[in-house]
Amino acid sequence: MSSEVLTEPLIDLRSFLDHCRTTVDAKLDQLVPGEAVPPTSVHQAIRWSLFAGGKRFRPALLLAVGTTLGAQWDDLIASACAFEMIHTYSLIHDDLPSMDDDDLRRGRPTCHVRFGEATATLAGDALQTLAFQTIAEDESLSPETRLRVISELARGAGTPSGMVAGQARDLEAESREVTAVELKSIHQFKTGALIVGAARCGALIAGADAATLAGISAYAAGIGLLFQITDDLLDVTATAEDLGKTPGKDAKAQKATYPGLYGIAKARQHALEIHQESCAALNSLTQPAQLLTGIADFILQRNT
Amino acid sequence: MSSEVLTEPLIDLRSFLDHCRTTVDAKLDQLVPGEAVPPTSVHQAIRWSLFAGGKRFRPALLLAVGTTLGAQWDDLIASACAFEMIHTYSLIHDDLPSMDDDDLRRGRPTCHVRFGEATATLAGDALQTLAFQTIAEDESLSPETRLRVISELARGAGTPSGMVAGQARDLEAESREVTAVELKSIHQFKTGALIVGAARCGALIAGADAATLAGISAYAAGIGLLFQITDDLLDVTATAEDLGKTPGKDAKAQKATYPGLYGIAKARQHALEIHQESCAALNSLTQPAQLLTGIADFILQRNT
Repeated sequence: MSSEVLTEPLIDLRSFLDHCRTTVDAKLDQLVPGEAVPPTSVHQAIRWSLFAGGKRFRPALLLAVGTTLGAQWDDLIASACAFEMIHTYSLIHDDLPSMDDDDLRRGRPTCHVRFGEATATLAGDALQTLAFQTIAEDESLSPETRLRVISELARGAGTPSGMVAGQARDLEAESREVTAVELKSIHQFKTGALIVGAARCGALIAGADAATLAGISAYAAGIGLLFQITDDLLDVTATAEDLGKTPGKDAKAQKATYPGLYGIAKARQHALEIHQESCAALNSLTQPAQLLTGIADFILQRNT
Repeated sequence: MSSEVLTEPLIDLRSFLDHCRTTVDAKLDQLVPGEAVPPTSVHQAIRWSLFAGGKRFRPALLLAVGTTLGAQWDDLIASACAFEMIHTYSLIHDDLPSMDDDDLRRGRPTCHVRFGEATATLAGDALQTLAFQTIAEDESLSPETRLRVISELARGAGTPSGMVAGQARDLEAESREVTAVELKSIHQFKTGALIVGAARCGALIAGADAATLAGISAYAAGIGLLFQITDDLLDVTATAEDLGKTPGKDAKAQKATYPGLYGIAKARQHALEIHQESCAALNSLTQPAQLLTGIADFILQRNT
């Protein structure tokens, strides 16, 4: 993927993403019980996984869409944190021995390796609960908006059309041939739905109209797919040091992936096309959308 | 425990509980994706555990408090189902090999024995999500009431003072001596918090004032403790056929229990005292509360 033409706008995006990470981390620290609060086991386990150096991509997308459409940062931050809590709970449960059986994430032991399976299961469960509680109790938003955000988060996280549905479809597809159509649908549920939900919540909090919401949804659906394709590519091409986790896991588990189905070159070409379509969906917006196109560029070029 | 004086009012209570179970089951059937909806694995697993013949105790308590205080059945039923979804998710995760490692529940294989650990984990996760979505989208309640119910449910289910906190405390206490104070606090979090939450939501939906809410909370805290003590007693005294699950598990796992700490006779005496205190807390209500005292009697006498 040619990166030279995109270097300039990425400088601003980097500072935006840094600001997202700093403010999201500070807010998460406020929202989650401290390590010394009993029961300490589960709170330490939650914080171990939540503050493991994640990129805060879903919060950043929510904040980027929201601020692009005119919402205030303070109205967006709690919902952004709720999406990160759901994402982190899913990583904790995904890493369990009965699921992906991963020992290493972001360069250190996964939650169950460090705290045991029972505590890791509970930590994931508690993080999911806290995500919904956080939105319900966010007094910066109107009751109606909070309910819309909770509904979007739940639909993006659950089943039949959210993240858990995607993980179940992925499990069902292990060790058998999948078609290109199936693969796209697995990704749309597994990672796409929560990413689309985050973007839509940014728009909802900004009070976006139906046309804007549709444009944002199409943009985010592309971003979500792009994110999964680049993730699959990194699993094939990157080293453990780059990734902070074990590469080559997908092939070993006979998981359906883009490079597995199309080969590396075609998967990269597909990523370029999705990137273009995603940015084109922003044309209907009346607001300048360079932050959002910048995020699309950033995902296309990511190497971690 | 002497049951003869209580036989008469239990006839009405039985028909109330039957009506609860019938209407809650019908509503749950509407709310949960069908077994044929893809991904079928997770929807079958959800329904396997959700429709396993549970007593629907938390929904019944919410409905009993709500109707006692003047709320309409149709306004209460979705919230009642949400509490059952949270309860069922916790049973699925509790039964996992890394937690209580239970093969049998309500007379049949547990979710992970039937569907595998990965699918059972996802089924529990999805049920938790659906609980919050159900309340958020329940248009029979005002936005403000829905948010109060979501907040109560989350605080009852999560950490640091809800069900997950209780399970974590219970794990922390395994294989070591616990004091009577610790034991009570484990129970209050592990089973009490969600039961209190259910009762409080019934009251909130009925528009109860602060004094009524306080009375209901005290009543339900007693009920929750009573439920746990009788559960512990049944684990010692009942057969697998009575219980539909493996008895004697607590002792085997060196879990802290009331009979373990006090002996069976003293634990029974303690149950009688808690029952009395619980019913006394209802004296502040202006409404006739025989449904609620009936539920207290029912728990005291239960043998399954």
